[in-house]
Amino acid sequence: MKTTGYAAQAADALLAPFDFERRALRPNDVAMEVLYCGICHTDLHQARNDWGWSQYPLVPGHEIVGRVIAVGAGVTRHNIGDAVAVGCIIDSCQHCDQCHKGEEQLCRHTVTQTYNDRDRITGERTYGGYSKHLVVREEFVLRVPKGLDLARTAPLLCAGITTYSPLRTWNVGPGSRVGVMGLGGLGHMAVKLAVGLGADVTVMSRSSHKEADALALGADRLLVSSDDAAMAKAQSTFDLIIDTIPVKHDLNTYVPLLDIDSTLVLVGQIGPLAEPSTVPLVMGRRRIAGSPIGGIAETQEMLDFCARKNILPDCEMIAMDQINAAFVRLERSDVRYRFVIDMASLPAPAAA
Amino acid sequence: MKTTGYAAQAADALLAPFDFERRALRPNDVAMEVLYCGICHTDLHQARNDWGWSQYPLVPGHEIVGRVIAVGAGVTRHNIGDAVAVGCIIDSCQHCDQCHKGEEQLCRHTVTQTYNDRDRITGERTYGGYSKHLVVREEFVLRVPKGLDLARTAPLLCAGITTYSPLRTWNVGPGSRVGVMGLGGLGHMAVKLAVGLGADVTVMSRSSHKEADALALGADRLLVSSDDAAMAKAQSTFDLIIDTIPVKHDLNTYVPLLDIDSTLVLVGQIGPLAEPSTVPLVMGRRRIAGSPIGGIAETQEMLDFCARKNILPDCEMIAMDQINAAFVRLERSDVRYRFVIDMASLPAPAAA
Repeated sequence: MKTTGYAAQAADALLAPFDFERRALRPNDVAMEVLYCGICHTDLHQARNDWGWSQYPLVPGHEIVGRVIAVGAGVTRHNIGDAVAVGCIIDSCQHCDQCHKGEEQLCRHTVTQTYNDRDRITGERTYGGYSKHLVVREEFVLRVPKGLDLARTAPLLCAGITTYSPLRTWNVGPGSRVGVMGLGGLGHMAVKLAVGLGADVTVMSRSSHKEADALALGADRLLVSSDDAAMAKAQSTFDLIIDTIPVKHDLNTYVPLLDIDSTLVLVGQIGPLAEPSTVPLVMGRRRIAGSPIGGIAETQEMLDFCARKNILPDCEMIAMDQINAAFVRLERSDVRYRFVIDMASLPAPAAA
Repeated sequence: MKTTGYAAQAADALLAPFDFERRALRPNDVAMEVLYCGICHTDLHQARNDWGWSQYPLVPGHEIVGRVIAVGAGVTRHNIGDAVAVGCIIDSCQHCDQCHKGEEQLCRHTVTQTYNDRDRITGERTYGGYSKHLVVREEFVLRVPKGLDLARTAPLLCAGITTYSPLRTWNVGPGSRVGVMGLGGLGHMAVKLAVGLGADVTVMSRSSHKEADALALGADRLLVSSDDAAMAKAQSTFDLIIDTIPVKHDLNTYVPLLDIDSTLVLVGQIGPLAEPSTVPLVMGRRRIAGSPIGGIAETQEMLDFCARKNILPDCEMIAMDQINAAFVRLERSDVRYRFVIDMASLPAPAAA
């Protein structure tokens, strides 16, 4: 299938129109027209080869919502016309203990990333959701529940599941005391989802200027990390802290806020952390953990939960040709809280 | 009660004989004659004021085994003549949620340390087990089960419980895959206790020269951290790693050895760690945790377990007047694996 999208042709190039082929449908494939695609900080990192493994042309995008336009002969889960979604992964081995547990994101034989990766069967490059069409095996295609606004659903596929998964792994529920560090795309979803699960939610920030935003998102309060008295009072009062800060930082201010046996979970891949002290870890049997996205079943659970609770990210819609300006703004955290590309803005692929 | 011991009179002073008073028995107090006291690295740190809160004179010692010589009027748990033991803590609030759970070591109102601390009632200084006698409230006095060698029991009160507690917190049992970093006083107990619990135990070391020692302690194998091929093969194969390395070090070599959702537990209070990378944490939902000693009930459970399984530390006995030489050797890790002071070597206190 001929399609079109936006690609980076090199680490230092702007994203620009790019026509390419999607594979012919295999029996278990779903073809979708992409309607909306969220912009994740990862897209920027990969377009610019910040992590050193980018291959070009690179079509970013892993927060994808669309409609099924064709299905392979063996597809049983999806029908033409269905509203569907695709997140960060589009394949896994399907045979290891993790895949059997529904934790495909932790597949023993590595997952296939939605973009900047290789198809497991043919070795063809994978291209993401900054494009008009997508072809994905049906097991990795999510159903968008009725009632969810399709445009605003897109960021749930990465920012949503990345924050929902640790909330579920660490059993957050009514009365859980949850802290959220960082109030960007992921942080604002962590707040909404934790509130939705019934938790008492505190946003942690260096200054008080985010207080109104935090409260508007549903948080119970803002804790200002430079307020020594407030921080002292808050020691040992959190069951879980979700740390979404996307740059190297010091955890030593925050770990003592955890109650005994409680956990600070890093959800951002930020490389090295500043040196953590063993003192608050040992004295309170506290823990520092990492958490990636969730599995397919958990992602579906999250979408269903968001539909039931009417939880959606705050989004700013852009046209496809605004992508380079959006990247610049994303770099300085100038977005509340997630950009979403309206794919109707992308012209149809050139005729063959 | 008049007694005698060895004390540091200043951070730069050698330990030397020191006569002092133990308090008259309160109704819930037990008085014991100290028979053996283990030497913990903490003793050295505190004698030299490495952590900045030492008060002098300072009588170290928190791995204490002895015999009851008197009991207060209300004592119900212990009788004159009983073999008993005292560890790192001798009091707590007894009223908070942690004390109610039997986690006195995590008391919300701070524990009273066996030495270099203040009695909760009178504010008197606490003096440790490098002494002829000790007076402790009965709730913090452990029973030494019949059959345990009293001398070798002493190090169980700190090195033993500090490694047993995380093994229990993280549910180690038959078939658990346990790694042990560091093979000193704590590390060698971690090996013996994990083996006793039925785990498959791997000692991790920078070179292969500790292999015979590791196997002699009951470990199943040595993993040499400088052997890239062996380390690559060992990735994601541990359920729990107990890290006993007593100096600042880099965890990044070891965290990838943890299986998904598994934990590396630090049991040493070593201040800052080298910068950990978020990559293996996030990719495998791995965790770094700290763990202190255990509570009183768990310490008793550990002593009973060691008696049942005949697990005891490897010790080198010394006389009280060899303490300063022992400290020097301890500093260069020249002991297999724990020094124990035979208190019979300490002359009785001078007459009044």
